[in-house]
Amino acid sequence: MSHIKKLIPKTVNPDLLKERTDAEFNVEEFAAWWQGGQEKLNTKREVERAIFSDLEDGYGLNHEYMSHEDVYNSSVKKVAEAAVKLKALQNKINPGGNDIWPGLLYNVESHGLFPANHPLATHITMFVDVINGQGTPEQVEKWGKAAENCNIIGTYAQTELAHGTNVRGIATRADFDPKTDEFVLHTPNLEAYKWWPGGLGHTANHAMVVAQLYIADVHHGVQMFIVPVRDAETHMPLPGVDIGEVGKKLGMVAVNQGFLGLDNVRIPRTNMLMKFAKVERDGTFKASPASRVNYLTMVYTRCLIVNLTSTLLLEAATIATRYSAVRRQSPFEANQPEPQIIDHVTQRLKLFPEIANGMAYHLAAEHMWEIYAQTVEEANSGKFDRLPDMHILSCALKVLATTDGCAGIERLRLSTGGHGYLTAANMSNIYGNAVAAYTYEGENTVLLLQIGRALVKAWAAFVEKKPVSASYGYFATSMQLKQSPKWDNSRQCIIQALQYTAAQKTRIAFENLAERMASGQSQGVAANNTGIELARAAELHGRQFVCQTFLEQVTGPKAQKRSAALNKILENVLELFLVQTVLNNMNDVLRFISLTDADLKSLQKRLEVALEKFRPNAVAVCDGFGFHDRVLNSVLGSYDGNVYPRLFDSAKRSTMNQKPVQKSFETYLKPLMKANL
Amino acid sequence: MSHIKKLIPKTVNPDLLKERTDAEFNVEEFAAWWQGGQEKLNTKREVERAIFSDLEDGYGLNHEYMSHEDVYNSSVKKVAEAAVKLKALQNKINPGGNDIWPGLLYNVESHGLFPANHPLATHITMFVDVINGQGTPEQVEKWGKAAENCNIIGTYAQTELAHGTNVRGIATRADFDPKTDEFVLHTPNLEAYKWWPGGLGHTANHAMVVAQLYIADVHHGVQMFIVPVRDAETHMPLPGVDIGEVGKKLGMVAVNQGFLGLDNVRIPRTNMLMKFAKVERDGTFKASPASRVNYLTMVYTRCLIVNLTSTLLLEAATIATRYSAVRRQSPFEANQPEPQIIDHVTQRLKLFPEIANGMAYHLAAEHMWEIYAQTVEEANSGKFDRLPDMHILSCALKVLATTDGCAGIERLRLSTGGHGYLTAANMSNIYGNAVAAYTYEGENTVLLLQIGRALVKAWAAFVEKKPVSASYGYFATSMQLKQSPKWDNSRQCIIQALQYTAAQKTRIAFENLAERMASGQSQGVAANNTGIELARAAELHGRQFVCQTFLEQVTGPKAQKRSAALNKILENVLELFLVQTVLNNMNDVLRFISLTDADLKSLQKRLEVALEKFRPNAVAVCDGFGFHDRVLNSVLGSYDGNVYPRLFDSAKRSTMNQKPVQKSFETYLKPLMKANL
Repeated sequence: MSHIKKLIPKTVNPDLLKERTDAEFNVEEFAAWWQGGQEKLNTKREVERAIFSDLEDGYGLNHEYMSHEDVYNSSVKKVAEAAVKLKALQNKINPGGNDIWPGLLYNVESHGLFPANHPLATHITMFVDVINGQGTPEQVEKWGKAAENCNIIGTYAQTELAHGTNVRGIATRADFDPKTDEFVLHTPNLEAYKWWPGGLGHTANHAMVVAQLYIADVHHGVQMFIVPVRDAETHMPLPGVDIGEVGKKLGMVAVNQGFLGLDNVRIPRTNMLMKFAKVERDGTFKASPASRVNYLTMVYTRCLIVNLTSTLLLEAATIATRYSAVRRQSPFEANQPEPQIIDHVTQRLKLFPEIANGMAYHLAAEHMWEIYAQTVEEANSGKFDRLPDMHILSCALKVLATTDGCAGIERLRLSTGGHGYLTAANMSNIYGNAVAAYTYEGENTVLLLQIGRALVKAWAAFVEKKPVSASYGYFATSMQLKQSPKWDNSRQCIIQALQYTAAQKTRIAFENLAERMASGQSQGVAANNTGIELARAAELHGRQFVCQTFLEQVTGPKAQKRSAALNKILENVLELFLVQTVLNNMNDVLRFISLTDADLKSLQKRLEVALEKFRPNAVAVCDGFGFHDRVLNSVLGSYDGNVYPRLFDSAKRSTMNQKPVQKSFETYLKPLMKANL
Repeated sequence: MSHIKKLIPKTVNPDLLKERTDAEFNVEEFAAWWQGGQEKLNTKREVERAIFSDLEDGYGLNHEYMSHEDVYNSSVKKVAEAAVKLKALQNKINPGGNDIWPGLLYNVESHGLFPANHPLATHITMFVDVINGQGTPEQVEKWGKAAENCNIIGTYAQTELAHGTNVRGIATRADFDPKTDEFVLHTPNLEAYKWWPGGLGHTANHAMVVAQLYIADVHHGVQMFIVPVRDAETHMPLPGVDIGEVGKKLGMVAVNQGFLGLDNVRIPRTNMLMKFAKVERDGTFKASPASRVNYLTMVYTRCLIVNLTSTLLLEAATIATRYSAVRRQSPFEANQPEPQIIDHVTQRLKLFPEIANGMAYHLAAEHMWEIYAQTVEEANSGKFDRLPDMHILSCALKVLATTDGCAGIERLRLSTGGHGYLTAANMSNIYGNAVAAYTYEGENTVLLLQIGRALVKAWAAFVEKKPVSASYGYFATSMQLKQSPKWDNSRQCIIQALQYTAAQKTRIAFENLAERMASGQSQGVAANNTGIELARAAELHGRQFVCQTFLEQVTGPKAQKRSAALNKILENVLELFLVQTVLNNMNDVLRFISLTDADLKSLQKRLEVALEKFRPNAVAVCDGFGFHDRVLNSVLGSYDGNVYPRLFDSAKRSTMNQKPVQKSFETYLKPLMKANL
C-alpha cells in the first residue's frame, strides 16, 4: 500500500539516541574493558566488518522459512564459504593464530554467521581437540592435521540412545582381534546406538567412537576409536555402518546430529587413541596412568559453556533493553502520553537483573580462566592439588550459568511481549541454542548432586578438623561465629549471609545423610534420599562464589585501571546483583539469620534504588557489550532501534508473502467455504 | 542394519506394565471423575476412535520437517478435512450440540488433530462469538450463520503493530460518511497496522476490525467493524487492503497470523456491530449502556486459558512421567543395575509437583466455571455484584496458570534430558503453543498490576471498615489475629499463612503507595513505583485462592462421591501442592510468621513423604488424565512406553534420512574437504 512508508530509515530512533546521550559513562571505555583491551576491541571490529558486510539481507532469518532439509544444505554452504573466508582472514590479520579460523566457528561472531549453528561445530570443537589431546604424536600427525584442514570431517560419538550421563553404562563394544591386528566395533542392540553427535547425520566421514574395550573377552574400560563411517569420495555410508540424523530439535537446527549403529566394523589397531592407555600388537593392554588431565578438559569445556551462556543471555538482554526503550505502552495517568516501557518499574525488574546476571557470570568465567591458567602451569610441574576444587567450582558455575541464563533469556523474551514470540525477534532461537547446555557436558541436576557430595565430604573433613581446600574456607568462618551473622546491610554481610546459609545447608544435608546411613541405608540410597538438600546446598555454594567473585572483580585492585565513572556503573550492577541474589534466596537465608522487618524493607528499597540508578545507563551498557547487529539478528534489538519498520520488513520477507494467494485456497479452503457444512 | 530389530513392539514396556499393576487406586474411576462422569468418558473415547484411527503414521510430526509455506498449506488441508469429518460426527453422536463441531477445533483433541494449531482457530473461537455476542439480530442472521458454516472466514483484528495492551491507544480510524452511509476505515501510519490476528495472513476473507469511531471528526470510542478483506471467489486482497502474514513464530506455527493495513476502505454503515453502541443513518451516535457483559466475556476467555494451560501442563507431565518410568540411568551404588529415573528423588521433585499444579489449576477452573454459571444467571436478572470480584480472580488464575504452567512444561522437558530436546518428544511444541497465553488476553504483568490495584482499593475499604467482597474476606480474618498465626503444621495453617502473608503484602503495598502519594507523586506514578510490591501481593492473592479451592474440591462434600482409594490419592496430591506452595513462598511467609527450625524441617519431611507416597501412583494418575497417544504426539510419552523404538522410528521418518547423501556434499562439502584450507 503506497500511502505508508515502510522503508527502514537510515537514522537512529530518537528515543535510543536520547538514551545514548544521557548515559553517565564512556561507552567506548566500557567496550574496551569488556573485550579485554582497546586492541582486542579494534580487531573485533575489523573482523566483523570483514565477515558481515557482504552477507545478503535476510541472511540471519532465512533458515526459519526453509524445510528441515534445506536448512541443512544451506548451512553446509554457509559454513563452507565461511571457512575459506575465515582462513584467509586469519592469515591476513593474525597469521598462525586460531582466533579467527577456526575461532569464529564457535565464538560470538558465529551467532551471526550461523544463526542455526552449523554441522561442523562438533568437528572443530571436539574431534580435532580430542585427537590432539589424546592421540600419539603419529596419530596427531596423521589425523589431527587432516582434521584441522577439514580434509576429513569427524565427530565425537559417546552418548547412546539409552546411555547418557552414566558413561560406564555405554554398551558399544570394541573387541581386539589379534589375528588381523584390528578392533571389531559393534553395536549390540538398539539402545546402544550412538545418538546426538553433531554432524554425524550427513556431514562427518569419521567418528570418534567411545566404546568398551575387550581383549580376549577381558574388559579394559572405555576407550576412543577413530572409525571411518562414510566413503571419502562418494560420502556413502561404509559397509556395516547404519547412519542418519536424529531428527529435528528445538534449537541448533543445523547441527545435523546423528545416530550410528555398527555391525562388526573393523578398524586397524592404530585407530585407538593411545596417548594414555595402549593396546600392543600382541594384545597386551597398558592402562593409562591416572590421568588428572581429563579433569582439566572438563574444567575447560565448562568455562566455555559459562562464556557462551552469559554471552547469549546478554544478547537477549541487549535486544530486550533496546526494544524497551523504543516501545511505548500504558500511560501512568489516563490521557498522558505512553511512556517508554523501560520506565515501568516492573519492566526494569525483568531487564536489569538479567544484565547483572550476564555480567556476573562473564566475570566469574574470567576469574576461572585465570585460575585455570595457573592450574595448568602447576599441573605441568606435577602439582595437582588445585584440581578437584576447581572441578567442583566449574561444575557449579556451569549449572548456575545455564540454569539462570536460560531462564533469564526466556524472561527477557517474555518482557518483549507479543513481538518476542516472532522468530524475527531471534529470542526463541537464542533460547534454543542456549538451553541444550542445560543437559550436555553433565546434566545440571546430576552435577548439583556431584557438587553436593563433594560438599558433605568437605564438611566431614571440616568437622573432623582435617584441612579443607580454600573454596570451603567459609565453613570455618561461618561456624566460628558464636551466633548467626549480624545483618548490617553491607555488601560484605550479604555475602556472609549467603556463605553462612550455604554452610548451614551443607550441615543439614550432611546430618540427614548421616542419619539415613545410621538407620541402615547404604550410602548411595541415603544420598539419593538426601538429594533435594544436597542439590540446594550445592546451588548456594555456587551462588556465594559468584557473588564473592563479582565483588572482587568490581572493587578489587582491577578497579584502579578503570575510570571512576565506569566503576560507578559497575558498582551499581554489583549492588543490584547482590541484593537480588540474597532476596531470591531469602527462603533459606531467613531460616538461619534474623532479619528485622526494617532490614527487609531496606533491601527492597535498595533493589528499587539500584534499578532506578541503572535506568539512564541501561542502553549504553548494552551497547558496551558490543554485539554486532548480525550477531543479535533481531528486528527488536538492532542498534538503530527502527523496530517497526524492521518488523514489517521481516514480515514482507516471509516466503508466504511472496504470493497473494496460497495454493491451498483452490484445493481445500474454497471447497470448504462452498460446502455449506 | 539388519542385525538389530527396530520395529515398534505391539507389547507394552514391562516397566510401565508394572507401574500400572502397582497403582493403589482404580484408574477407570479416576478417569471418569476427571472427565466429569463415565458417560462423558465414553463419548470422549468414541470420538477419539473416530477422529484419530485413520490418521497416517507420522501425522503429528510431519510439520516439523516442512517449509513454513508447506506447513500452512498442509494445515489448511488438515482443518478442511477435519471440518467435514467433525460436522458429520456431531450430527451422528450429538445432533445440535457443539462439543464436536466446532468444539474439537480447540478442545484437547485438537492438539492431536492440529499439532501446529490451525488457521481457523481465531475464526471459530472469536469471529463467530463476537458477531453472535455483539451483533444485532440482523447481523447475527447475515454474518453469524455464514461464519458458523465457514461460508465466510473471519478473524478478530484488534492489536496493532505498536498498540497492544492499551486498547485506547489503537490508531485505526473509522470515519462515518453520511453522504454514502458508509464508514471509511483507515490505517494512518505503519504503527497502526493490525498485527497478530489468527488466520488473517492468507486464510480469512473478513476481518472484525477494532477502530476509533469518528463522526464528523467527533470521537466515539472504540468500535468493531466487519471488513471484507479478500475477494470471495479469487481470494485476492481487495483494493485498499494491504495484507500478509507476520512471519514465523516460536509456536502455533500454522495459525497464519497476519497484518492488515487499510487505505480508506469503505464499508456499509451496517457493518459496524450495533447490539450495544449504534450509529444511525443521519450520523447520530447512541452510546452503549454501560456493558458489564464485557466482563463476563473476559472471565469466560480467561477460564478457557486456565483449562488450556493446565491441560498442556498435564500432557507434558504425562510424557515426562512415563518416560521417567522407562528410562534407566545412574545406579545408586556402583555396579548395581541402573534404576528407573523416577526413583531418583530429585527427578520426582521435577515431575510430581507439576502434576499437582496441573490438577490444582484444573480444579480451580472448574470452580470458576461454577461461579461463572451462577454469575451469568444473576446477571440475567440484573444482579452484577459478583462481577468485579470474579473478574479479578479470573485474572489471577490466568496469570498463575500460564506462568506456572509454562515454567512447568519447560521444567518437565528438561527433566527428560537430551531426548526432550528433540521435536519428536513434542515437549517444545507443547511449550510453544502454551506460552503465547502468557501475553495474550492481558499480558501477565499488566494483569498482576491490575489485580494489585484492586487489592489496595479493597484494602482501603477494609481499613475504613467499609464492606469488602468475599474474596477479600481473609483481610479481616488475618488482621483480627492478635499476632501472626501460630504454625501447627496443619493444612489449614498453610492456607492461613498464605492468606496472612497476602494480607500483609497488600498492607505494605498500600502503605508504600500512600506514602508515595503523600510525598507528592501522582497516583499513577506512585502505583508504578510500587509496582513490584503490587505484583507480588497480587500473586499471593491468587495463590491463597488456588490453595483454598483445591482444599475444598478435595476434602469438601464432593469427596463423598468418590471412593476412599481415589480420595487418598487426591489428598496426597493436595498435600504435595500445599507444602510446595508454602515452601516456594517462604521468602515472604517467613517475613511475617515465625516458623521454628523444627517447623521447617517438618515441612521438608512432608515434601519428601508426599513425593514418596505419590511414587507408586504417578504413572496411573497420568493415565487417568486420559490423553490419547495422538494428543500427546510424543515418542517419549506413548501409552506403550516403547521409547527407544519410537525414537528410532521418528528419526527414520526425518525427510533428511530418505537419502544417504545430501546434495550439499558434492557442491560444498567435498570442495571444502579437497581445498586444503
